[in-house]
Amino acid sequence: MRDAYREELAEITDGLEQMALIAASAIGRATTALLDADLQLAETVIAADDRLDQLQRDLEERAIAVLARQQPVATELRTVVTALRISAELERSGDLALNVAKLARRRFPDHAVPHELHATVLEMGHVAQRLMAKAADVIATRELKTALELEGDDDAMDDLHRALFRRLMDDRWQHGVEDAVDVTLAGRFYERFADHAVSVAKRVVYLVTGTYADDLPPQ
Amino acid sequence: MRDAYREELAEITDGLEQMALIAASAIGRATTALLDADLQLAETVIAADDRLDQLQRDLEERAIAVLARQQPVATELRTVVTALRISAELERSGDLALNVAKLARRRFPDHAVPHELHATVLEMGHVAQRLMAKAADVIATRELKTALELEGDDDAMDDLHRALFRRLMDDRWQHGVEDAVDVTLAGRFYERFADHAVSVAKRVVYLVTGTYADDLPPQ
Repeated sequence: MRDAYREELAEITDGLEQMALIAASAIGRATTALLDADLQLAETVIAADDRLDQLQRDLEERAIAVLARQQPVATELRTVVTALRISAELERSGDLALNVAKLARRRFPDHAVPHELHATVLEMGHVAQRLMAKAADVIATRELKTALELEGDDDAMDDLHRALFRRLMDDRWQHGVEDAVDVTLAGRFYERFADHAVSVAKRVVYLVTGTYADDLPPQ
Repeated sequence: MRDAYREELAEITDGLEQMALIAASAIGRATTALLDADLQLAETVIAADDRLDQLQRDLEERAIAVLARQQPVATELRTVVTALRISAELERSGDLALNVAKLARRRFPDHAVPHELHATVLEMGHVAQRLMAKAADVIATRELKTALELEGDDDAMDDLHRALFRRLMDDRWQHGVEDAVDVTLAGRFYERFADHAVSVAKRVVYLVTGTYADDLPPQ
């Protein structure tokens, strides 16, 4: 493989890793903004989303340029096609962090999350951020073992999501419908964010093994 | 362009159109299942989603095969890359119809949607189905005028979504938190479904004009 070609493929991978790290940071900041009712912090997440959208467009143009110029086949072709799919997942993750930040902004100066759910939502934010940071790592290293861990890690998010719903449905819920609506939406945003991180990892698994992660024997 | 090549590109477009029509039908049936608390109908939507996932995988493999074999450039290259992105939007739309069907199943034999919101949710289902059917049309015809209409059509969904939230937040809401949670989720599913239809149309606009729909002068 010529150096310029190798360089182009490496730049695409770097771009994806950068997008994943921005998304991970965005969901962390959005969670803090939500729990602290911090409008200024929420606004930084909202502004950062444009950056992610721009990176996605750039990456797509770059992928198309590589396809046209290098006419890759086999592994390199799958790398470029996978990059297109991963960049879409990451752009969408950024939108979900944006949604969390917008929730904080809409309820400002009130808190959207009642105190007794603070710990659960904080943990959801941490799990989401950790999953996406790990997805960034998987993009960079293509390590199969780490990639396959993500689905298991996501179980923690599912447990938290279920716990959140149990609290909502509890007869002792005292916070009225507006809080219930916002907590429902927040729960959904975190769950979807985590799903995208898992999808990114699955895409890398497919790239490395040629097999969908669901069809692999458990590690 | 050789006939076999032209044929391969046409098959990809046909596959996308078929996916969009399946998604449109799925959201229509899911809405009926939700409003009628019809478990059997809900199950057909849940089963149809596998079909959509399979079509998406097939289409992706076919796109990769065309890239490898024909090494397309210029318009044909963009067509194939756009097809990859559109297929992901359509697969995700199917998941959202699935989510609506699962909502119906989870609450069966109860109704998840209170009577006084029946008309609003029905209309959301109709708008969603119409938008996706129109997206299928845009995929097949690449008609710029129709493609550009979709964003305007989506305003109807936004209005319905706002109306739904107003009812939820209304002090006269008598249906408790469980219904509020389910209506919130349903509203979100319909809104996202419509967004995907709009994204499909925007992708086609970009393919035809080389310009993002947001940057075009209003028609």
